[in-house]
Amino acid sequence: MPDILHRIAIKSQPSETFKALATLPGLGRWWTGDTTGDAAVGGVIHFRFGDRGFIDMKVREREPGTRVLWEVVGGPDSWIGTTVAFDLAPDDGDTVVMFRHQGWKEASEFMHHCSTKWATFLMSLKSAVETGRGAPFPHDVHVSNRGD
Amino acid sequence: MPDILHRIAIKSQPSETFKALATLPGLGRWWTGDTTGDAAVGGVIHFRFGDRGFIDMKVREREPGTRVLWEVVGGPDSWIGTTVAFDLAPDDGDTVVMFRHQGWKEASEFMHHCSTKWATFLMSLKSAVETGRGAPFPHDVHVSNRGD
Repeated sequence: MPDILHRIAIKSQPSETFKALATLPGLGRWWTGDTTGDAAVGGVIHFRFGDRGFIDMKVREREPGTRVLWEVVGGPDSWIGTTVAFDLAPDDGDTVVMFRHQGWKEASEFMHHCSTKWATFLMSLKSAVETGRGAPFPHDVHVSNRGD
Repeated sequence: MPDILHRIAIKSQPSETFKALATLPGLGRWWTGDTTGDAAVGGVIHFRFGDRGFIDMKVREREPGTRVLWEVVGGPDSWIGTTVAFDLAPDDGDTVVMFRHQGWKEASEFMHHCSTKWATFLMSLKSAVETGRGAPFPHDVHVSNRGD
């Protein structure tokens, strides 16, 4: 099965990057400003993207400074049941983030799009942690020309 | 085997995007300013990234307005023998680019890095075609903090 895989390094302590991935205010600063729900293990986080759609993520793992794993429980059909993992490791003053969105059934055109879009959101995460300014929806970088 | 897959849409005719993928001046405006060699089918294009490294691509396919396929014949060990394809299709005033870097032997940390880095270069391609200003090396977007 095809996976979406990315790696970035963020000038931060892992604990700072972890906050951006594991708390509602943190997530709101780089993915979508409309983030609500329960970020504890077993909780569901609701990510809303206006008329672009929504994603509901069940928090499966949340290891401070180390790892966040979500399972998609609401959103586009092809996302349901897939998992999104962020693994963090310190690296000489940086935090390396290994990103994996796995469980896709096929390498659809939409999956290709999501791969590129995730990259731009990870750059938003990097910027949010390093500078305090990310580019969450509705200020996100568009990889196409139809608001997406 | 893991693939790097991306999709962008560029406000352009496919013929314009094709020029950016299939000519030395075009490539120099979004991937690396140090691009030399022979962009015809069977030729080898030399992409140089200063002390960051180099890639040599043999042009396997070059279908005007439709497709470019390269085979990596020089560069990092894990790149040798892999292929990089750009498939273009018109879409209501846009050109959709389906990007596939295939043939990786393993989902290494470097492969994750390259996936994110390709996304930023594809955004550079989009910007180069749409606005005339890309972000080729040495003006490329860094996804880590060590000049890469």
